[in-house]
Amino acid sequence: MDSALKGSIYTILFFFTSELLYKLYRKVKDSRHVKSESESNMYSRKQETTSNCSSLKVLFFPDSKIACRDHFITGNGCYKDICAYSHSDTALSELYKHMLACKSTLDVCVFVVTCKDLADVLARLFRRGVKVRIITDKEQLQASGSQIWTLMKDGIPVRTNDSSYLMHHKFALIDGKVLINGSFNWTRQAITGNQENLIITDDSSVTQLFMREFQKLWEQYDPKNIVAGFLPKP
Amino acid sequence: MDSALKGSIYTILFFFTSELLYKLYRKVKDSRHVKSESESNMYSRKQETTSNCSSLKVLFFPDSKIACRDHFITGNGCYKDICAYSHSDTALSELYKHMLACKSTLDVCVFVVTCKDLADVLARLFRRGVKVRIITDKEQLQASGSQIWTLMKDGIPVRTNDSSYLMHHKFALIDGKVLINGSFNWTRQAITGNQENLIITDDSSVTQLFMREFQKLWEQYDPKNIVAGFLPKP
Repeated sequence: MDSALKGSIYTILFFFTSELLYKLYRKVKDSRHVKSESESNMYSRKQETTSNCSSLKVLFFPDSKIACRDHFITGNGCYKDICAYSHSDTALSELYKHMLACKSTLDVCVFVVTCKDLADVLARLFRRGVKVRIITDKEQLQASGSQIWTLMKDGIPVRTNDSSYLMHHKFALIDGKVLINGSFNWTRQAITGNQENLIITDDSSVTQLFMREFQKLWEQYDPKNIVAGFLPKP
Repeated sequence: MDSALKGSIYTILFFFTSELLYKLYRKVKDSRHVKSESESNMYSRKQETTSNCSSLKVLFFPDSKIACRDHFITGNGCYKDICAYSHSDTALSELYKHMLACKSTLDVCVFVVTCKDLADVLARLFRRGVKVRIITDKEQLQASGSQIWTLMKDGIPVRTNDSSYLMHHKFALIDGKVLINGSFNWTRQAITGNQENLIITDDSSVTQLFMREFQKLWEQYDPKNIVAGFLPKP
């Protein structure tokens, strides 16, 4: 009976020890598994955010000061001791940021373009190899300080409407993926004077519709499709 | 030795049986846990979808015809044998639909309002008890066919900017929840003539910013806050 008891005790000890070792092994294994699972969830959540949830940004004007060109655009920085322009983020500097991020195409469909700073960004991107296209209002070509003639001289293709009604859109499409749209015309007055807004979105269901609208108007305003081509050569 | 072996066998059998029973118990418990966990994940995903994903709608103008008032607005239907207006959905009829769905507040912040059809919708909603407020551009009060005077006579509160710069926004907020914003002024020319767009969104991160902008301007343009009240009584 003593040896039966001894046998039982050894067996119990053996089971407990093996059970303990097995549980320790599981614990280490599970913690590694949980870690890798949580990393993979984070990745898929990130992916969801990118694909399903679009980012919407809102800019309100007027800015109190024009954003400093050297500071925000040239990339060389501003070396002035006292600079009259803003080195803090403004609605315009945010707009610059989105435009300067452009890699391949920039489609601008804006009623009036008289702001030299914004026109310079277009010219800069064009020189960088970005395919810039502009649709604007025919009458506004004659607006004081219109930048369209200079941009055409630079080689940027421009088309305008052919009726007395207004080509009144004010949107731009960055790489066909980011839409900038609102009440904002590309004028100095719109930057530091008027009450204006821009919504910036990468929601593809919206950008695709604006891309289609741009393409429709681009073809409609092709001088070949207009009986009398009205856009003089620069 | 025989009895020691016997004791060990009994103990082993006891352990295996208890281990088997425990594993069966865990299996049943885990399957219930997994089920309830997956239901809870579905719920939280649903919640995420509701809170993060907004609906965005785009309207492009011009419409080929003005939407029929009787057909789309009055609710009485159009009884004309031959109606010159559109009974098919147009961008304007879609705009009507969103405006007429308004229950409590309608905040309009639009540069120019000369379209009688759109002004009538505002008056109709105001009579229905909707709290309508309008911010518009001071100079545009003098625009030919401005509807602002009539709306003020109806009792709708109106405020305007107090500078030579433009109050150039073109947005409306339905019940503080749906934003209608774009290049579109509330004119007949914008409906059937110009190239225009409107984006309609219920993204709360955006509507809240526009609500704040409206409230800011509403207070800024309060005649009490302007040295010389410039808005004449109707």
